[in-house]
Amino acid sequence: MRNPEHDGYYMPGEFAPHAATVMIFPERPGSWPYGAAPAMPSFVKIWESILADELLYLVVSPEKLGACREILRNAGLLDRVTLLTIPQNDAWARDTCPTFVVQPETGDVAGVDWRFNAWGGEVDGLYADYAEDNALASVLCHNLGYGRFDAQDFVLEGGSVHSDGEGTLLVTEACLLSEGRNPSLSRAQIGERLCRYLGAEKVLWLPRGIYNDETNEHVDNVCAFLRPGEAVLAWTDDKTDPQYAMSAADLAYLESVTDAKGRRLTVHKLPVPAHPVCITQHDLDGFTFAPGEDEREAGERLAASYVNFYFTNHSVLLPQFGGENAQSDALAVKLMQQWCPERKVIPVPARELIVGGGNIHCLTQQIPAGKTHA
Amino acid sequence: MRNPEHDGYYMPGEFAPHAATVMIFPERPGSWPYGAAPAMPSFVKIWESILADELLYLVVSPEKLGACREILRNAGLLDRVTLLTIPQNDAWARDTCPTFVVQPETGDVAGVDWRFNAWGGEVDGLYADYAEDNALASVLCHNLGYGRFDAQDFVLEGGSVHSDGEGTLLVTEACLLSEGRNPSLSRAQIGERLCRYLGAEKVLWLPRGIYNDETNEHVDNVCAFLRPGEAVLAWTDDKTDPQYAMSAADLAYLESVTDAKGRRLTVHKLPVPAHPVCITQHDLDGFTFAPGEDEREAGERLAASYVNFYFTNHSVLLPQFGGENAQSDALAVKLMQQWCPERKVIPVPARELIVGGGNIHCLTQQIPAGKTHA
Repeated sequence: MRNPEHDGYYMPGEFAPHAATVMIFPERPGSWPYGAAPAMPSFVKIWESILADELLYLVVSPEKLGACREILRNAGLLDRVTLLTIPQNDAWARDTCPTFVVQPETGDVAGVDWRFNAWGGEVDGLYADYAEDNALASVLCHNLGYGRFDAQDFVLEGGSVHSDGEGTLLVTEACLLSEGRNPSLSRAQIGERLCRYLGAEKVLWLPRGIYNDETNEHVDNVCAFLRPGEAVLAWTDDKTDPQYAMSAADLAYLESVTDAKGRRLTVHKLPVPAHPVCITQHDLDGFTFAPGEDEREAGERLAASYVNFYFTNHSVLLPQFGGENAQSDALAVKLMQQWCPERKVIPVPARELIVGGGNIHCLTQQIPAGKTHA
Repeated sequence: MRNPEHDGYYMPGEFAPHAATVMIFPERPGSWPYGAAPAMPSFVKIWESILADELLYLVVSPEKLGACREILRNAGLLDRVTLLTIPQNDAWARDTCPTFVVQPETGDVAGVDWRFNAWGGEVDGLYADYAEDNALASVLCHNLGYGRFDAQDFVLEGGSVHSDGEGTLLVTEACLLSEGRNPSLSRAQIGERLCRYLGAEKVLWLPRGIYNDETNEHVDNVCAFLRPGEAVLAWTDDKTDPQYAMSAADLAYLESVTDAKGRRLTVHKLPVPAHPVCITQHDLDGFTFAPGEDEREAGERLAASYVNFYFTNHSVLLPQFGGENAQSDALAVKLMQQWCPERKVIPVPARELIVGGGNIHCLTQQIPAGKTHA
């Protein structure tokens, strides 16, 4: 059967060279309050930082094309961003765009087109109409001239898996074994499919993610590879924080396993913000929810974590939550700069992004470098 | 059965208001010699003229995106053109993009997605691999958020039909009854399908098109509506020219019929260039042909006609052939300005376009104004 692993494709680590990054313009009224205006400075900062390093494809719906062009023009970016006019249901490129894989002998790059059901479909999905989101990966592969591997028989979001590029994948049980995704498949079968589609040999199953993460605890909010054999884990020393037991379980697991190369992992603890970041009534007043869409409540704790960073070719875009978390923010910058001395750490205001339901990593999808036109 | 006519959609005349024009970047090595460099000034002139009046969507393949952006940047147009990155097989937007129809009560605009077989498929098609061209209309409707009417059971190119927007269509028998398109359908069945898909009542069947036109004589090279009840016909008074009998047969037909409103048509004669425009050995040396692609011979007469013009919202982009046809060029400008006093006639150098195999009308596709976002 033709599939990425069979044809010799694999998913490089995000830290490996990129040809480009794909993002999506924030439009959904139930995710981005006040027409996404409060989040726009964060988006502009991300776009600018990516463009300093690599190509940026920005997907925008035909309805918002004019507004998007206006914002890019005002930011001096209109000439530099490559706009792709395609309808979609929300801005989470990590979860709705293809997961790109590379054939190292030919340098060919192709996309894996997973089934997307808005993080849980009828069980606990976040919105009811996700047809455009599910179609997006296929449309992108066609438009950008990349081959497509059909994985529409398997529900997955890109944010629920990390790859070290050397045979090891990182996921959470909380997400991948959730009822709303692939309930008919066993854990072993799920692991086997992941390896087949991403050209990997071993899956590391963290038990949990970040507290109150509405993605059923995507791995990309709690743990990430800095390079093969080395990971960063969201952490807290506060035993009264519900995050404590979750991170502790993950650490215990990581200390108990080896990767596909037989290595024990070096795990760096990256403290979560010292103060909970919560949604306010003002935020809520700016949303317009569609029927069947998951709503929020004032005071609800958001899943704030510094691990939801993104590697461009030469930098790390690191979330910052501001306000009373200024010290936590600074510590995260300092630690990441220590652990990634070869990169420039770029702090990005992210409070308005997590109001939208995700963070920098969720909003980005890398296209790895290969023998490609991009 | 759901189809445009059933749902109250119709194809407005090209002279009716547009929301936008779609074009495609010229890339095919077998159509555009020397990397399309000689034709590029003509393209830039067309793009500029359209942008003065309406939105311009420019489809470009991922492989040529960088080169296209560079050309647009140098022309000062990069900020103004909306690029759509989509693979395709050639630049004839008229023939491969959807034919757009409007529902006048709701203002909704939708696209008709005809089957495209490169002007004749295995019988006398011009190239063998046209899969991306045939997929383009569907992709465009999706990307731009327009509904799509599926007419993939019927081979048609947009250049083979004109609409007056008041129930009358104009076609040629030479093209629509050709062996390479819909040989299993009778003339009556073809007319019935055209009316159903374009919301029309009556088809006027001109016998012929322009001499040596490799599209099997598309109507858009020989005859066009200036407004309802009024048409322009490519003409010659030179009885030794093979075009004479063809144009004479068309004129005789047009003088013998009434349109859907019962009107006799006013027909203006627009003289073809006085001197044949021929392909040269230098042109031929610049082509690279693919297997199965139709090739040309030095000295072959090209299907030069001034009728292959395009209406933007306030202008007419009129082909000019230059050289020894300077007088014919000037006459065409003068006549069109007389017949269309409400429009600005913009002369566009077109010799390098017909080397590519078509002309301004073939390269453009209007999206009519409606209650639309565009």
